[in-house]
Amino acid sequence: MKLAFINGRFIPEQEASVSVLDRGYLYGDGLFETLRVYGGRPFLWERHWRRMADGAEFLRMSLPCGEEALLGSALQLIARNEMPDSVLRIHLSRGIGPRGYSIQGTTGTTLIMTLHPAPVAQSKPLEWSLAVASVRLPARDQLARFKTCNKLHQIVARTEAEDRGANDALLLNTDGRVAETTSCNLFWVWNDTVFTPPVESGILPGITRGVMMELCAKLTLPCEEKNIGLDDIKRADGIFLTSSVLEVIEVANVDQQPIARSVLTARLHAAYRELATAGMIA
Amino acid sequence: MKLAFINGRFIPEQEASVSVLDRGYLYGDGLFETLRVYGGRPFLWERHWRRMADGAEFLRMSLPCGEEALLGSALQLIARNEMPDSVLRIHLSRGIGPRGYSIQGTTGTTLIMTLHPAPVAQSKPLEWSLAVASVRLPARDQLARFKTCNKLHQIVARTEAEDRGANDALLLNTDGRVAETTSCNLFWVWNDTVFTPPVESGILPGITRGVMMELCAKLTLPCEEKNIGLDDIKRADGIFLTSSVLEVIEVANVDQQPIARSVLTARLHAAYRELATAGMIA
Repeated sequence: MKLAFINGRFIPEQEASVSVLDRGYLYGDGLFETLRVYGGRPFLWERHWRRMADGAEFLRMSLPCGEEALLGSALQLIARNEMPDSVLRIHLSRGIGPRGYSIQGTTGTTLIMTLHPAPVAQSKPLEWSLAVASVRLPARDQLARFKTCNKLHQIVARTEAEDRGANDALLLNTDGRVAETTSCNLFWVWNDTVFTPPVESGILPGITRGVMMELCAKLTLPCEEKNIGLDDIKRADGIFLTSSVLEVIEVANVDQQPIARSVLTARLHAAYRELATAGMIA
Repeated sequence: MKLAFINGRFIPEQEASVSVLDRGYLYGDGLFETLRVYGGRPFLWERHWRRMADGAEFLRMSLPCGEEALLGSALQLIARNEMPDSVLRIHLSRGIGPRGYSIQGTTGTTLIMTLHPAPVAQSKPLEWSLAVASVRLPARDQLARFKTCNKLHQIVARTEAEDRGANDALLLNTDGRVAETTSCNLFWVWNDTVFTPPVESGILPGITRGVMMELCAKLTLPCEEKNIGLDDIKRADGIFLTSSVLEVIEVANVDQQPIARSVLTARLHAAYRELATAGMIA
């Protein structure tokens, strides 16, 4: 029987519930983080915690416990469920308050952790087809900095992509520049330089995106933030995606147009796998 | 003991809960409607139902019952709670599915109705101060047509406005044009013509907004859709807001700058009150 963690207690996941008046349910008034668990340890824990804590501060939600206590509970959850190789989801919602958008009068936040099956680790990057979404992300969106529970654009874009036989959607922003996919950050290679859209384009500043930029520096590969359009990215020497869960993914085509392959994708995938296996960074 | 309606059953509101794995809670993957109940009848029921049904179709969520059955349950909920003058909230969420944004493999939707206290009816329109929000709504957003459970922009904007002593926030869109407030549609008067932003500006096409446009036609007042900027709206002959719950609200000032008052605001408020009292339209 799989256990979930909810506000300090471990209970069977099927019994874990929240009030229908929790603003997380009413308005998506919450934040979450998705971490890969390797060898019983949530990878890059500190960075995920930091992003959630920053988001909670921005949204004025109180965290019901500190970082160390939560990590302790996460490790317990992993051990008790015997899931040392899995995906950990942390979820924070605002709790109950009067009807309406005002946060005045809301009571204690709800904090939940659940574990989910991990994807099978790959010796080579996955290869994905992307389909350009009809919905767009707002450029310069203040909220995009955090992993919020407002994901309908991602859900609609993902559904469209699957309808068209693609693995994921490529989202443009309201300026018409490429931004990210529904669940991954976007990189492309051009003349041995690695590029990724800047945070101001309205993307989530992914934890794995940050690690990838650091890996480029370590491997002395130039890596720059840049805004480009769809026509330009299709002419790249290679496109790849990053995500905490799926690590590094090679893009094979965009709207059925084949994309060139760069040797750097496999190289960065291997370097990331090495980090993850060693668990050397928090 | 107040009752809620959840998937066909009437249960005490405090006990009404959903799984922490319901995608409504995880991602704001849901829709809602808020209706005024006057004299035991949900006002403009058919229009609210239609918008929710259209949204459910767009998002590919199945409605667990038809319009007539739901209205019957709503009337029962109102009667059993003895709340003939109240606010009815209908909430539809996608239910449970595998982790991630794909809707593949999701099971039955969750449909909930709750009742809330009504604001006190006013003989004259309420007067509100607005503060311009720092967050912007995406122009031409496909999802804005529906009342979705992704409301963090509204929550952040409302919080900012309250911090600045205002009643609500005035939201601009990513084109820099005025759009709506967090919970109301926006109208302004200029040379005896009534204006409101077009749906393409990224606003929710409010039910009361639609009724107001019809009322203008009935009163032979010209009413047009128009995109304008902040400087222009501040020079209007009058600004008013519409909402199903609060009906018609006069805007007294925007970012502390006083706004002119138009006699049309009180006239339209009175005409709307008459409709609501008579309950003449569905």
